[in-house]
Amino acid sequence: MRQSIDICLTPELIHQYELEDKIVVVVDILRATSCMVTGIAQGVKEIMPVSTLEECVALKGLGYFTAAERNGEKAEGFDMGNSPFEYMNDELKGEKVAVTTTNGTLAIHKSLMADEILIGAFLNIDVLAKYLSGKNQDIVIVCAGWKGKFNLEDTLFAGALCELLKDNFEYLGDVPIAAEAMWQKLKGDLKGALQNSAHAKRLAKMNVTKDIEFCATLNEYDVIPKLFGESLRNYQP
Amino acid sequence: MRQSIDICLTPELIHQYELEDKIVVVVDILRATSCMVTGIAQGVKEIMPVSTLEECVALKGLGYFTAAERNGEKAEGFDMGNSPFEYMNDELKGEKVAVTTTNGTLAIHKSLMADEILIGAFLNIDVLAKYLSGKNQDIVIVCAGWKGKFNLEDTLFAGALCELLKDNFEYLGDVPIAAEAMWQKLKGDLKGALQNSAHAKRLAKMNVTKDIEFCATLNEYDVIPKLFGESLRNYQP
Repeated sequence: MRQSIDICLTPELIHQYELEDKIVVVVDILRATSCMVTGIAQGVKEIMPVSTLEECVALKGLGYFTAAERNGEKAEGFDMGNSPFEYMNDELKGEKVAVTTTNGTLAIHKSLMADEILIGAFLNIDVLAKYLSGKNQDIVIVCAGWKGKFNLEDTLFAGALCELLKDNFEYLGDVPIAAEAMWQKLKGDLKGALQNSAHAKRLAKMNVTKDIEFCATLNEYDVIPKLFGESLRNYQP
Repeated sequence: MRQSIDICLTPELIHQYELEDKIVVVVDILRATSCMVTGIAQGVKEIMPVSTLEECVALKGLGYFTAAERNGEKAEGFDMGNSPFEYMNDELKGEKVAVTTTNGTLAIHKSLMADEILIGAFLNIDVLAKYLSGKNQDIVIVCAGWKGKFNLEDTLFAGALCELLKDNFEYLGDVPIAAEAMWQKLKGDLKGALQNSAHAKRLAKMNVTKDIEFCATLNEYDVIPKLFGESLRNYQP
């Protein structure tokens, strides 16, 4: 029997999925997982996702750079917010970053039952698909969404990943069929689709058009951030 | 300001929506709302959705025909199951039917906060869109799904209805964008898409290919079932 692939559209539906023994790919295109992929690709040694601003601050004393976003904006008093461009900084090479965001870190924490947790973004989709194709294991793509709600950009990524994997995996239920159809309809203008999403509209007020364009870039990097213990590191299988 | 339209992908996410003062369109294409539209079009006077088999049986004593489905199959001891063809029966004209199904009746009961609850299916989509276009009221399309999960056919209907209404309504959030894209990709072969859905595969084992084809028929009827009190009746605005 072929291995299966499924998609969880928001963390609020995660109780419907069995994650044990599976590989989970967490995706939060705008912008947490795009940042994580960028950071790891730029040489950050370790990224620790934490739930609260307090935990994030506490890690500063332990030598971590800190990155914090709430409602799309950089939280006050932290080194970085949630823009991938903030990770393109030579000072971060070999360093550790503690990060807390509205949706992405929650999605990771809700996926801890999985056998393996990987970080996905358009920025690393091909290398991720190539790795997953070689594994003989069921996959669930967990979309971070926005405050528990469905969002367009994470589901588009899930549809794109399903399209890349469909020859080797069986779609479980209807979500992969739906997400793939959506992706096929909109992929011709991915940047346009992302600009049109609800979250892009929220972010547009904050002047982050450049971020959105970058997050819609395919295969900028060939790293796979993977959760080891409590932290994400570059996974070299 | 234009009125808004939104889509709730499964009853498990309905807490994310404010239904007060809004019109809810409940959809369960395979097959509860397709049956309801068919029944009302065939002259059934009243359809009462109830939660349990026991309530359904009890209404038999009060002169109701009874229709009951569990896990896609007709429940034993009831007059009808959940096939639209069972409603094409002259004996039902002017009569009352009590109905309980796996998903459709739950979706109706979870929508009771709404100002108005209407029943949608591909069978009556145009008359529904025409009615909604003339109203100056926000709309939420509630997909019944399958046991709390997303399903393809209800979301496709929601996308189709959004496409018909987009000139007069503002999309709220990302779900309408996503559902419309999915619909546009798959509408060229709606019957094929429905045959490919997870629920169709469940039903196929029960020999209901004919039902699925019929449920994928556009505009067979021009009735709008609407909830008055506890029962659905033909709404003639």
